[in-house]
Amino acid sequence: MKGIHGGDIYRNCVDMDFSVNGNPLGMPETVADALRRAVGRCGCYPDPEAEGLRRAVAARLSVPEEYLLFGNGASELFMAIVHGLRPRRILLPVPSFYGYEYAAEASGGETVYHLLREQEGFLPGEGLLEALTEDVDLLFLANPNNPTGRLPGREYLKKLVSLCKRKGITVVLDECFIEFCGGGCSMLQELGTYGNLLIVRAYTKIYAIPGVRLGYLLGSDPGLLEKVGRHLPEWNLSVFAQEAGIACAGEREFVEKTAEFVREERRFLTDGLRRMGLRVFPGDADFILVRSERQLYRELLRQGILIRDCGNFRGLSGGFYRIAVKGREENEALLRAMERITGKNM
Amino acid sequence: MKGIHGGDIYRNCVDMDFSVNGNPLGMPETVADALRRAVGRCGCYPDPEAEGLRRAVAARLSVPEEYLLFGNGASELFMAIVHGLRPRRILLPVPSFYGYEYAAEASGGETVYHLLREQEGFLPGEGLLEALTEDVDLLFLANPNNPTGRLPGREYLKKLVSLCKRKGITVVLDECFIEFCGGGCSMLQELGTYGNLLIVRAYTKIYAIPGVRLGYLLGSDPGLLEKVGRHLPEWNLSVFAQEAGIACAGEREFVEKTAEFVREERRFLTDGLRRMGLRVFPGDADFILVRSERQLYRELLRQGILIRDCGNFRGLSGGFYRIAVKGREENEALLRAMERITGKNM
Repeated sequence: MKGIHGGDIYRNCVDMDFSVNGNPLGMPETVADALRRAVGRCGCYPDPEAEGLRRAVAARLSVPEEYLLFGNGASELFMAIVHGLRPRRILLPVPSFYGYEYAAEASGGETVYHLLREQEGFLPGEGLLEALTEDVDLLFLANPNNPTGRLPGREYLKKLVSLCKRKGITVVLDECFIEFCGGGCSMLQELGTYGNLLIVRAYTKIYAIPGVRLGYLLGSDPGLLEKVGRHLPEWNLSVFAQEAGIACAGEREFVEKTAEFVREERRFLTDGLRRMGLRVFPGDADFILVRSERQLYRELLRQGILIRDCGNFRGLSGGFYRIAVKGREENEALLRAMERITGKNM
Repeated sequence: MKGIHGGDIYRNCVDMDFSVNGNPLGMPETVADALRRAVGRCGCYPDPEAEGLRRAVAARLSVPEEYLLFGNGASELFMAIVHGLRPRRILLPVPSFYGYEYAAEASGGETVYHLLREQEGFLPGEGLLEALTEDVDLLFLANPNNPTGRLPGREYLKKLVSLCKRKGITVVLDECFIEFCGGGCSMLQELGTYGNLLIVRAYTKIYAIPGVRLGYLLGSDPGLLEKVGRHLPEWNLSVFAQEAGIACAGEREFVEKTAEFVREERRFLTDGLRRMGLRVFPGDADFILVRSERQLYRELLRQGILIRDCGNFRGLSGGFYRIAVKGREENEALLRAMERITGKNM
């Protein structure tokens, strides 16, 4: 696992971290308050049923409470899924988040990779549908994808999940970044139609609390949820996760404000980087994928800026980098550092 | 899982909770400080290598850093053990902590129970050694046991682990309550001798932070640790767990003070309960097992006091109760409530 993800601020000397993709607005004040309150509650076990959190999240998403499972981060839910379903064959479109591969390998099953092609903008298409044969048990797909930030689109996803339903394939749709993309892209409303659909989300990214660990899973098939839930450890949610989660669920406007902010800053950063001759791929998330012949990772780190070198993403060759969309001041600092590297003006 | 453990303060109206066994001295102030500081660090991912924590715990226990794996509570480590080792046959001495059974069932293997007998003071003896046949892959044993508080003794444990080593059985020794028992009972120093020994501990109990979630596993066989660690989710430790854990590791005197305090209060509570005609089993932990013909659980709950009804412990019939050892004031309140129930004086 060492060094496979971005964000290794623990073993790098970094002023600005563009390698992880948290909300550039930071955590809402109500969430910080909840965390401070939680310190006083650490003497008690967390509620193993997470009743308060369940009620809050179900109300926020307008889903039945029994659709929900909570995890110590999305990463715990990915592991519980493979432990619970014991898939013999798992299909992973790549490039994508390494966490699916980490979980798939723990399953003991066979992992098959489906290459998303650069010339198709890294979007899943007919090729992926064809790869979904009956010997596949489980598909991990990200909506939007990481590191590309691309949304497959709801119509495509409906077609895919419906096909998987017919073929007995469980679809794990990772929507950990969906709130950054604005409304209308999620498959949340399709849960009732497709029992084979599991949506995984996290509070990590959108509420800027990766240190807390809180993810959730949504599904409408009680049998499937039971199988997965059986592999979650007891008391897997800390009191911090539960208290923060309840506060997060109350922050509706914050999410709308974030999506707007990110759209604006993504445009600013994209334009600036393009003016400096970088190839910037289109995307809808709070990060952008760029391609460059330069040693961007090393050259930026020399200036105290950490970005994500995508060289270890399966399905990507060297020269790809993922850059987080941050606040204007930091985005400008990044562009200025790029000016020093490229010799061009932003 | 519903209602299988003590401590359901979330669905009971309780003034005093004697059903869970945290440190009666509460959390050390340095730990509370660390948790408050951690609120400001939630915007960053926790260190996936837990370098600082690893260094602090290894130094505190005088073990090599590579002996350690960390978990989101001991419960996560139990699950990772069964997922990693995939045992076909698991032996569980009972009565004991339900968590082993929960993990064993998730393994998909067969669970075999070995009854610890009341007339032998619930201590494991020759019978358990005889039950450790070659078809057993994994043994969960608690040192001290819960709900009895009994220590099997180091000489017995060495004999048992040595036998298991010859027979290819991995021993998971749960030492989550060991610090309450004073020195000299742990198998920590035997780790280097027995590669098949895994010791699991937690900071939950001794530092009174069950809400934080932090456990650790110790073993000297790198291959075994690799197998287990592979089934822990990425970023399984929150920043709260890591910061609190480092502070805990510095609290050596607190642990000694706790053991002394608990010894004194256990004696006080034991004497008082015996004077009221209850059968109190001898034990060395921060809780005591009692037997009574009365409906103690219900009668105490009516007075706002929650104790642990052990009726759902496998291997115990009705009429057994586990009572935490708390501070003098609370222990006296419990005894006064018992006076009202029994009509006898403490």
